[in-house]
Amino acid sequence: MSHKIPRSSDDDYSAEIIAKRQQFIKEKTGAELDHSTRFSYDPHVMAGNIENIWGVAQVPIGDAGPLLVNGDHAQVEIYVPMATVEGTILASYNRGMKVIRESGGVTTTVSAESMQRAPVFIFANARDARDFQIWLNENFALIKAQAESTTSVGKLIEIENYHAHSMIFTRFDYATGDAAGQNMTSRATFFACEWIQKNYPGKLRNYMLSGNFDTEKKTSSVNLLKGRGRRVTAEITIPRQVLIDNLRITPEQMQYGYQVSTLSSFMSNSSNNVSHPANGLAALYLATGQDIANIGESNQCTGYQRATRDGDLYYSITLPSIIMASYGGGTNLPTQSECLKMMGCHGKGKALKLCEIAAGLVVAGELSLAAATRLDKETRTNEWVDAHERLGRNR
Amino acid sequence: MSHKIPRSSDDDYSAEIIAKRQQFIKEKTGAELDHSTRFSYDPHVMAGNIENIWGVAQVPIGDAGPLLVNGDHAQVEIYVPMATVEGTILASYNRGMKVIRESGGVTTTVSAESMQRAPVFIFANARDARDFQIWLNENFALIKAQAESTTSVGKLIEIENYHAHSMIFTRFDYATGDAAGQNMTSRATFFACEWIQKNYPGKLRNYMLSGNFDTEKKTSSVNLLKGRGRRVTAEITIPRQVLIDNLRITPEQMQYGYQVSTLSSFMSNSSNNVSHPANGLAALYLATGQDIANIGESNQCTGYQRATRDGDLYYSITLPSIIMASYGGGTNLPTQSECLKMMGCHGKGKALKLCEIAAGLVVAGELSLAAATRLDKETRTNEWVDAHERLGRNR
Amino acid sequence: MSHKIPRSSDDDYSAEIIAKRQQFIKEKTGAELDHSTRFSYDPHVMAGNIENIWGVAQVPIGDAGPLLVNGDHAQVEIYVPMATVEGTILASYNRGMKVIRESGGVTTTVSAESMQRAPVFIFANARDARDFQIWLNENFALIKAQAESTTSVGKLIEIENYHAHSMIFTRFDYATGDAAGQNMTSRATFFACEWIQKNYPGKLRNYMLSGNFDTEKKTSSVNLLKGRGRRVTAEITIPRQVLIDNLRITPEQMQYGYQVSTLSSFMSNSSNNVSHPANGLAALYLATGQDIANIGESNQCTGYQRATRDGDLYYSITLPSIIMASYGGGTNLPTQSECLKMMGCHGKGKALKLCEIAAGLVVAGELSLAAATRLDKETRTNEWVDAHERLGRNR
Amino acid sequence: MSHKIPRSSDDDYSAEIIAKRQQFIKEKTGAELDHSTRFSYDPHVMAGNIENIWGVAQVPIGDAGPLLVNGDHAQVEIYVPMATVEGTILASYNRGMKVIRESGGVTTTVSAESMQRAPVFIFANARDARDFQIWLNENFALIKAQAESTTSVGKLIEIENYHAHSMIFTRFDYATGDAAGQNMTSRATFFACEWIQKNYPGKLRNYMLSGNFDTEKKTSSVNLLKGRGRRVTAEITIPRQVLIDNLRITPEQMQYGYQVSTLSSFMSNSSNNVSHPANGLAALYLATGQDIANIGESNQCTGYQRATRDGDLYYSITLPSIIMASYGGGTNLPTQSECLKMMGCHGKGKALKLCEIAAGLVVAGELSLAAATRLDKETRTNEWVDAHERLGRNR
Repeated sequence: MSHKIPRSSDDDYSAEIIAKRQQFIKEKTGAELDHSTRFSYDPHVMAGNIENIWGVAQVPIGDAGPLLVNGDHAQVEIYVPMATVEGTILASYNRGMKVIRESGGVTTTVSAESMQRAPVFIFANARDARDFQIWLNENFALIKAQAESTTSVGKLIEIENYHAHSMIFTRFDYATGDAAGQNMTSRATFFACEWIQKNYPGKLRNYMLSGNFDTEKKTSSVNLLKGRGRRVTAEITIPRQVLIDNLRITPEQMQYGYQVSTLSSFMSNSSNNVSHPANGLAALYLATGQDIANIGESNQCTGYQRATRDGDLYYSITLPSIIMASYGGGTNLPTQSECLKMMGCHGKGKALKLCEIAAGLVVAGELSLAAATRLDKETRTNEWVDAHERLGRNR
Repeated sequence: MSHKIPRSSDDDYSAEIIAKRQQFIKEKTGAELDHSTRFSYDPHVMAGNIENIWGVAQVPIGDAGPLLVNGDHAQVEIYVPMATVEGTILASYNRGMKVIRESGGVTTTVSAESMQRAPVFIFANARDARDFQIWLNENFALIKAQAESTTSVGKLIEIENYHAHSMIFTRFDYATGDAAGQNMTSRATFFACEWIQKNYPGKLRNYMLSGNFDTEKKTSSVNLLKGRGRRVTAEITIPRQVLIDNLRITPEQMQYGYQVSTLSSFMSNSSNNVSHPANGLAALYLATGQDIANIGESNQCTGYQRATRDGDLYYSITLPSIIMASYGGGTNLPTQSECLKMMGCHGKGKALKLCEIAAGLVVAGELSLAAATRLDKETRTNEWVDAHERLGRNR
Repeated sequence: MSHKIPRSSDDDYSAEIIAKRQQFIKEKTGAELDHSTRFSYDPHVMAGNIENIWGVAQVPIGDAGPLLVNGDHAQVEIYVPMATVEGTILASYNRGMKVIRESGGVTTTVSAESMQRAPVFIFANARDARDFQIWLNENFALIKAQAESTTSVGKLIEIENYHAHSMIFTRFDYATGDAAGQNMTSRATFFACEWIQKNYPGKLRNYMLSGNFDTEKKTSSVNLLKGRGRRVTAEITIPRQVLIDNLRITPEQMQYGYQVSTLSSFMSNSSNNVSHPANGLAALYLATGQDIANIGESNQCTGYQRATRDGDLYYSITLPSIIMASYGGGTNLPTQSECLKMMGCHGKGKALKLCEIAAGLVVAGELSLAAATRLDKETRTNEWVDAHERLGRNR
Repeated sequence: MSHKIPRSSDDDYSAEIIAKRQQFIKEKTGAELDHSTRFSYDPHVMAGNIENIWGVAQVPIGDAGPLLVNGDHAQVEIYVPMATVEGTILASYNRGMKVIRESGGVTTTVSAESMQRAPVFIFANARDARDFQIWLNENFALIKAQAESTTSVGKLIEIENYHAHSMIFTRFDYATGDAAGQNMTSRATFFACEWIQKNYPGKLRNYMLSGNFDTEKKTSSVNLLKGRGRRVTAEITIPRQVLIDNLRITPEQMQYGYQVSTLSSFMSNSSNNVSHPANGLAALYLATGQDIANIGESNQCTGYQRATRDGDLYYSITLPSIIMASYGGGTNLPTQSECLKMMGCHGKGKALKLCEIAAGLVVAGELSLAAATRLDKETRTNEWVDAHERLGRNR
């Protein structure tokens, strides 16, 4: 058919086939492709990252910082590349970083990690399901050996299992090193499931490799409780005067606003009780070659804060589903690897550092916006509205 | 301080200041910036979209399609530009589009729209709050006039209001035309709130411009019920043989898998009961200059499907929170506007068409993956795992 | 068949048929029925409340109080009858009432009411559904007239409507006076639906009288937001010294515990963020002839508290789904009406007073338990554990 | 004070003090107490179940059945005592039991049990919290020994632990034998916590015996996933003709209704996706001396059903939070123990049998109502509405 997008079975990343596709698009759609066709590198580097490649999106990157992070893995002042098309976002995060610097830095802690694939095992009835559940727990070591035989990196940590009706919903939880690991876990889990299918002595009717309990690219209670990717906490105690000087708000006002926002989030059944973690994460994910669809999971988090007895502000965020890689996926693409290198986060052994930076970044954005949305009672102006007037597209 | 990122109060988007920032980054971080500095256009076009600009992310764009959409606003075969770094995604969506074409197209319907700002009004006690709630409902027309005086486009549709304790949580719901509208609604709502503050005859203690009930960049029950952005449904009836031939699965098997997945999503309290809407949406949002942080909201949706009496498959998705603009925001950036133009979706009067394409795209990806995750019982292979082996980074 | 429970089509509440059933049970089960057969009144009064009646459960009732309520409808000191089999519950609520009395009473406010029936209307596709939604909103007055023609009491307040796929999920929200109203709303809504079926000019495929969106006898986000039964708030400011003297806890400690508990409830996706509202409600519902299955809804609520600037404690609970009647249902049964009369809450015009008492009761129980669960750091004892040792079944 | 309810420190369950309280109530409230004062037994048996006892609620009990249960623990035809004041409920459950009998019985399976107390451990920061979490998991055996030293029955199965901010939220999960076990678990967990406080080598700031993660008397995602009390599944395959003859509905219509209801429950974020499990559970809990406030938890469940290839209906319910005792609590009260004995469920070793009966009962009620809410298209009547007209209080 004439509407078929040109492809080459020989080399689908050559200049020739790309040019053909560009020509095809121009003819079919009438669009000019003056800018989206201008990538600065050999298109073959994109093999494995995309199909039917014909161009690139050029997304502006700005720099915020430095962000002072006291992590287990990141103990540095970092200039954070943020790619976004939303005016004021970067300026807002930048302001939060100043507060963090003046407070001596944000402390970050990675407390857990697990990437899932979540097969569901299906039986004739609940008793068969229950019996399998017992067997599954008793044979964890054997299954683990099978799953890990497929990967040099992945480690099977746990097989969560939840019984309902004639089914056992599971989550195979892996440590995946410096890769995000979704594909690694698919392969390992598939191998383990096939082994189970052959070796389970009871009656197993069927299984599906994903029963949707991995809750991939979506928020869920099970992700919040058990995690997906890395669970990272960023926390900081902001001296009273630093808070007032920079953000014109007191610790008590912050706590008050927090209580109202949290009540609101509880009532609306929101995926987080803070303001806008997705903004900072999306900008960092995009700049560094992460899968931005994971914002679907990563926006889920909790905030906790209170005025201390000394009159300062303790502020913290726990992100249970940070999914970031320093290796594999999109991290080797040219602009993406440059941004990773800017932060010393490219390649093996850097994923945890990257996750800690992400968590610190989220705190910067929250501090800034929490203060900005307040009304200035003297001038009866609102900084949040004003900032968009000044910096954003509304001009 | 020496670590201060260079800025120019005169023109922060000039070649000079950008070069200074590039130099600063190289010195501070030691990173090479060979590719991320290569944008193909005058950086001044990025003013209003970002601060501290120094480069661009180049993200691969491929093309999928054509996607045959029978919408109210989109009645066309569309070649869909998708920007992603995740191998196999585009191929998977492309396959779904073939199923859609062979089924005569996907039908799309926009049934509601509303963009929010959500002030909370705070009182001394519950009775004062209740009295305000009554007044608010009775004075909607006056408040609407105030809010709309700030915008030529935005229309205030409704003020949702929810009472708890000494507070009234509201959502000011606007129609925002072809813009996403978050800033327009902030300004209009701020103006309305200030008017309320002055004119409410009762006792109002305070208000906060956002009480977090807008649930921006997060999922929530209130978004699912009342919407945020556009509520779009895409639906299709796939002839039995088309399904079997293309996806090697029967309508009854699809329905069976759907029931299990939906039960799983209910148990895990997931933001959707389907597979991966965030993937397609993120790729399209990125290519077309949308705010990708909105994936935080837009991944929320419901799927519904069943085998029909005639043995075919009825399949549908309702996305209550599609947030897309054809005008403003990032839509005028060079590569982004080219991608919009490819689909005839650039500029005024095109936002609904764009939303319909997005919903159709989601269906394409769901159909493909729903089938792929199944086990081929004869060969005992799993296409999903295999595809990542063949196309993805695992090679 | 010999295992058929004896019934009489003539009079199923006569002493004779009841004796036959008692005899039947004794023979079939071997159980003695020495106490459950001893009801103190003519069994015919139970007609309409139960079928196959053969005895009564005798559930202990104690008295707590007085509860000092400053309501719109209840402005009294009330002795509250509580029926329970759980030791320590009543003593705990009683202690909370003392705190309330010493603080000048609990203030209660009813801010909304609505009892639902929730038909779902089903169409061939999303566009037909959307068109119906528009028609439904435009024809509210006509539909209201139809629904209200079936009842002298019920008033149709609103028809909430939510579009998904080819369906419109609705909630017909009624004011139901002094009755709980579930049956009244079923009948009225059925009548309205039949009228719609005949008079809707478009294409309506089918409807189901309940599409489960009434979320009856379960908790839900839609109940929390839109209410079911009455939305009642109870609030109180407890002077610092009253709190310390009675509960050995400071306002700041209370607020601290509240923040932790609320975070916990947010993480666990709980139906409330307080301790045990179901206890007090169940005891009061049971004593006063309410449907105790409504604890399924009524346990849902929010708590909000903070230490005030003056060092006192502001404490409040909003219960969005209090379902209580002073008329109809079980309220005329002999012991039940006596308990209602004890509080001046029997018969017409008393339902709101009863709801206010219920909300005040919940606050009493929360105050007491919130303090009891704390550790006494000096003695390293825990009052909660101790109370069960002293008063409960553990002795 | 004159408003003080009379109490006796000597014997608060004597006839004298009870008479004084009755007299006090009559004087204070003007109410007659003709029926609520008539209990048929020595009030001293109520010691440990209630304080300030002065009377009893007489709640009608009817009988439904027989319910044919094929359980692991219950393999019998049971006549089920149901205490309720809601007309039509018992008749509806009775009808469902007929369907169950004609289908050969309902199969029940207990797959898990755990009763919780949920201390939260509080630290100075996230790293201290993380370190404690590791220690906690490594020292499970020691902690288990401490907890179990306080009880001859309770067994500590697991300590769930969830990290957020500077806190570790835990759930100590116990097997509690034939008692519901809330108090047993409080005592055991308190003892364990005090041991931890003394023996943890790191820095533990504080702990609260309940951090609200037990989610007691409320629904929650963590209860749904991990259970509270017993997790019980009841399932049945109903022959096509049995379904049609008894309920005038086909398996395909049932499945259709199920899919719509489940979608509705997902959208509304309901605590279950079925119709009214709380009704049957409340009636059984009340008759048998259970804590009816536990309806707050027990209403949470999932339903799953589908038309089989043979044209029959597979129907099942999994209840993750059935909380029932055959021993302790209210089970020894006179009418309550009689009802337990009717079912052979009184005393030690009977709790699981009782849970299985409860689950079978829920299925009976669901089958009946699922069919009743449908419209009879020929007569255009609705059985649900009609039943309340015939049997309920609306006459």
